[in-house]
Amino acid sequence: MKIGILGGGNVGGALGVSWTAKGHEVFYGVRNPESPEMAEILAKSGGSAHAGSATEAAAFGDVIVNALPWPATKDVLTALPLAGKVLLDCSNPLLPGLSGLEVGTTSSGGEKVAEWAKGAKVAKVFNTTGFGNMEDPVYQGAAILMFYCSDDGDARRVAAMLAADTGFEPVDAGPLANSRLLEPYALLWIWLAVKGGFGRDFAFTLARR
Amino acid sequence: MKIGILGGGNVGGALGVSWTAKGHEVFYGVRNPESPEMAEILAKSGGSAHAGSATEAAAFGDVIVNALPWPATKDVLTALPLAGKVLLDCSNPLLPGLSGLEVGTTSSGGEKVAEWAKGAKVAKVFNTTGFGNMEDPVYQGAAILMFYCSDDGDARRVAAMLAADTGFEPVDAGPLANSRLLEPYALLWIWLAVKGGFGRDFAFTLARR
Repeated sequence: MKIGILGGGNVGGALGVSWTAKGHEVFYGVRNPESPEMAEILAKSGGSAHAGSATEAAAFGDVIVNALPWPATKDVLTALPLAGKVLLDCSNPLLPGLSGLEVGTTSSGGEKVAEWAKGAKVAKVFNTTGFGNMEDPVYQGAAILMFYCSDDGDARRVAAMLAADTGFEPVDAGPLANSRLLEPYALLWIWLAVKGGFGRDFAFTLARR
Repeated sequence: MKIGILGGGNVGGALGVSWTAKGHEVFYGVRNPESPEMAEILAKSGGSAHAGSATEAAAFGDVIVNALPWPATKDVLTALPLAGKVLLDCSNPLLPGLSGLEVGTTSSGGEKVAEWAKGAKVAKVFNTTGFGNMEDPVYQGAAILMFYCSDDGDARRVAAMLAADTGFEPVDAGPLANSRLLEPYALLWIWLAVKGGFGRDFAFTLARR
């Protein structure tokens, strides 16, 4: 397959190197095709990889991969002729300092709850999996995860303790505003369970090397 | 610990039964404390559990747990005196038909990209983990997950194939609008890696019973 990768950073490089090893032809579209970073990626990619402009990458690829940083994405994509091409988008609309997402997240149920329950010490927890997993959170001998987030020390401690008492492995997911991450995570679980054909006997877990 | 659970549905019941088994005292605040469903949960919860109104549950608990359906959450919480209490919020602001979240998600980078790349067949993929995991997506012999979502059959097939070629287990996460789920999921990974002390050598995986 002929793949045009927009961006030659960590993600574009990792994917391109992996795909050339599988026999795909890769063309990196970057601002500076002569950079030392690009030379290193090309060396790792073997003889079938090339580097040039974004326009050349878009013309080369049957499949185009957006591995640009988010701030560059709009200008580059709107300038390219991409009609009819498959475009794989690897970007994330991250705000500076990882404080959130520029697009799509403006609030959360957890923050609303804190607004409504005046003065309460709120933690978001027990929202990211189904009740069957709450009844039995042990899969093949291993506790599954329970994320919690809060701005309050007491609420954090109680959330962690009760998650452990329920049989989960509690994981601190940061401030209450991270409900903006845990609620979509919950809907992903629900979507897979109900619409994605997974059923309810699965859980998100975490692997370490 | 004295715990007031608002709601006696699947989630409230699962948590309450689990916690009474651990020696916590539980009071379920529900609309109908005499219902057969409540009687069943109380029977499973042993002698230390009670049922009554939301107001009674809020007065009883040092810790309050919101296990209400989202549409009921605002009215119940605003009516209760919760100042100073720890409140664990298990709700998710689900829209009818699981079509999305009522609060907080309005768009996504993936949808913006589809708008900017006119006519392209867009899939969201390779956004949910770090480049180190793209270079080596096998943890202890098992491929980690790569979610993709798209409204286009060609884009879906290419995303799945290239995810597999990279060494991931591809998982179909539905329509392109589910980028609203995959991008916060990505930020959760990034947050844990960079701010949560996990480092980058971990991955979200999926366990089945």
